[in-house]
Amino acid sequence: MEKEIKVGLLGCGTVGSGVYKILEQNATSIANKSGAKLTVAKVLVKDKSEELLVDVASDKLTDDFEEIINDQEIEIVVELIGGVHPAKEFILEALKSGRSVVTANKELVAKHGHELLITAREMGVDIYFEASVGGGIPIISPLKEDLAGNKITNIMGIVNGTTNYILTKMEQEGAEFSDVLAKAQELGYAEANPTSDIEGHDAAYKLAIVASIAFESKVDIDDIYIEGITGITKEDILYAQELDYKIKLLAIGKEDNGIEVRVHPTLVPIEHPLANVNDVFNAIFVEGNAINEVMFYGPGAGQMPTGSAVVGDIITAARNVNFSAQGRISCTCFEQKEVIAQKEVMSSFYLRLEVLDNPGVLGKITGLLGEHQVSIESVIQKGRSNDTVPLVLVTHQVKEGDLNAALEKIASLSDVKEVASLIRVEEY
Amino acid sequence: MEKEIKVGLLGCGTVGSGVYKILEQNATSIANKSGAKLTVAKVLVKDKSEELLVDVASDKLTDDFEEIINDQEIEIVVELIGGVHPAKEFILEALKSGRSVVTANKELVAKHGHELLITAREMGVDIYFEASVGGGIPIISPLKEDLAGNKITNIMGIVNGTTNYILTKMEQEGAEFSDVLAKAQELGYAEANPTSDIEGHDAAYKLAIVASIAFESKVDIDDIYIEGITGITKEDILYAQELDYKIKLLAIGKEDNGIEVRVHPTLVPIEHPLANVNDVFNAIFVEGNAINEVMFYGPGAGQMPTGSAVVGDIITAARNVNFSAQGRISCTCFEQKEVIAQKEVMSSFYLRLEVLDNPGVLGKITGLLGEHQVSIESVIQKGRSNDTVPLVLVTHQVKEGDLNAALEKIASLSDVKEVASLIRVEEY
Repeated sequence: MEKEIKVGLLGCGTVGSGVYKILEQNATSIANKSGAKLTVAKVLVKDKSEELLVDVASDKLTDDFEEIINDQEIEIVVELIGGVHPAKEFILEALKSGRSVVTANKELVAKHGHELLITAREMGVDIYFEASVGGGIPIISPLKEDLAGNKITNIMGIVNGTTNYILTKMEQEGAEFSDVLAKAQELGYAEANPTSDIEGHDAAYKLAIVASIAFESKVDIDDIYIEGITGITKEDILYAQELDYKIKLLAIGKEDNGIEVRVHPTLVPIEHPLANVNDVFNAIFVEGNAINEVMFYGPGAGQMPTGSAVVGDIITAARNVNFSAQGRISCTCFEQKEVIAQKEVMSSFYLRLEVLDNPGVLGKITGLLGEHQVSIESVIQKGRSNDTVPLVLVTHQVKEGDLNAALEKIASLSDVKEVASLIRVEEY
Repeated sequence: MEKEIKVGLLGCGTVGSGVYKILEQNATSIANKSGAKLTVAKVLVKDKSEELLVDVASDKLTDDFEEIINDQEIEIVVELIGGVHPAKEFILEALKSGRSVVTANKELVAKHGHELLITAREMGVDIYFEASVGGGIPIISPLKEDLAGNKITNIMGIVNGTTNYILTKMEQEGAEFSDVLAKAQELGYAEANPTSDIEGHDAAYKLAIVASIAFESKVDIDDIYIEGITGITKEDILYAQELDYKIKLLAIGKEDNGIEVRVHPTLVPIEHPLANVNDVFNAIFVEGNAINEVMFYGPGAGQMPTGSAVVGDIITAARNVNFSAQGRISCTCFEQKEVIAQKEVMSSFYLRLEVLDNPGVLGKITGLLGEHQVSIESVIQKGRSNDTVPLVLVTHQVKEGDLNAALEKIASLSDVKEVASLIRVEEY
């Protein structure tokens, strides 16, 4: 094979070094599939003297982006520096100079993906971002290609490994959130500043990306309802188990009359395929009007798995270069659909109230729920006490606004000490 | 949108009518994604007067393949008649006349895929066959594209819904194979003549296809070791449970020193993602040197799910027509690797022997196993009886030939009445 396609790598941290390693280790097979030898011609680093996780010849290293953009032989630029700036400017400059781009940058794609895709289309080049959701798991390309014949009605993902690890350990060890978080930080499964993970922001970035593709309509990150897992207690996990559910942080996008997009802890029935996704693993469950249901499961992060997705995109971009087919798959947001306000969303709910153990209290509560069109599917009431007792209820489907109105009145009952937990429930 | 791409459909049975329905129902979205309106111009049926599952205008129906091949406006031919002949001849003629082809025909692709792919490459057109493995589940395109950066080391699939349904029911209901098979036939989950499913041939076709792609080397169907599930008893399922395994019919392809390809009942650890794949669902588990592991789960058959995969391929083929990029992804069997003889394959084994309840019998058996390099991981011996008692052993990894040599000697021991079961075990 004579042909060679040169790649410029922006960033050589964890994922960047994984990409470099994969391109070297599997070079022959990758060249066969790409129809060209793929060579990393230049690597952008912050400081050329810093030690890297892979051996890169020093003449390939540069700390100046212009050196990459001015290298006319580079046809594919791979952005792995993360964050919005200067990643966005670098990518736009690469696209505008006719390079195809591959990125793993979820925050950037969630916030500015539309602009990047439109720019790529105008320039007749590609931008691919498979690694931005679910690490190594193929999901963006399946949505845009394999499942393209479907009208997608539901996409639900466990797309944050840190929170899934924490919830799994809370369940397996009967431990409290804060203790498991501390242990996860020790083990490197949670960052020193875990806010973006545990508050659901990381999952929301990923949801904005996949929901935009699934529903063919740009979903703004600000339209996503976001609730993290910091309020989940071991009691809730135990009650959920008793009711045959597991608690998972789900990123949910649905389309019925308008689009619903929300990230929150969710009771998932134990027979649902997502219920068995444990530890740091991710999975994305998709429903469509032809496929019925399908699930993609795997490692949602890590040097080599994320590198796998990036290299897959590089190969796709290289094939397009070879066939002069850049832009073959571009922005798929063909429509403008409305996102439904969270108070209009229909869902079932798990409720845990702390109530005084007085006769008639259950009647008062179910009465108020009934007044607001909330009907009850199951109840757990246990123990007797001079103090408060927990009362656990699972509702049928109800409009979130109606439930909140009922809860406001319930919370003001003298028998009710606290609405301790309110967690949405998915059926299967 | 002005552009239109015309499609010729060969066959309008279950899957064909699903494809027709999807193309109509989701027409706008499909046109947006394809960059062209996709119109079914002609439908080949055996008998134009037969009733179809969808409404096809009578002027589109033909019982003559030549009418389709002579319609110069048709750019994509979709083969859904199944079987080797005349499907193979139709496809070759379509390819040679410059049409891209989509097929769901597992038997044909398993037996003659290489020839079809080479013909397509020579003609500069496409042949896609996503629906031939795993029904609606994306697996071929993920292997050829998303995971293309990996050296695949292991691919293990539950790729036959009938046998998975039978094994699931045997486990859940404690029923015998023949009873569940009869019930499955009643419910339409098993065919009147179930041989191809229960003897593992259907799974072997699918394995030949995915293993060829995974290992980049043509795997001949005749090189696959095939063993069905007719010998699985409820006792074995119960013992497996006791040992924390489930029994699944797996299609396994591995590459280490050479390629292993085999279809057989397998003890799968309950914590393995494949262990939770129940009923008629399919799943394909893949390990690669970058991705680590990933699993694709969903409906392995059915009108609409299989139709989903076919339509996904049609859209891909249409995109290539639009970009004049036909042949963008072609045959990926770049190498010729040897398939290892089954007796050389390393595996752990589950053994159930019926032995006389005499002192020292376990010692004699483990002694003979030890002489042949077979070491034992676990033993279950239960009950006392004047007749025979079951002795269940799980071995460590052993070369299959060595185990068979030991078993030959064990079977001839006077204390051993029967080697009742021999099932391979996968670890996780």
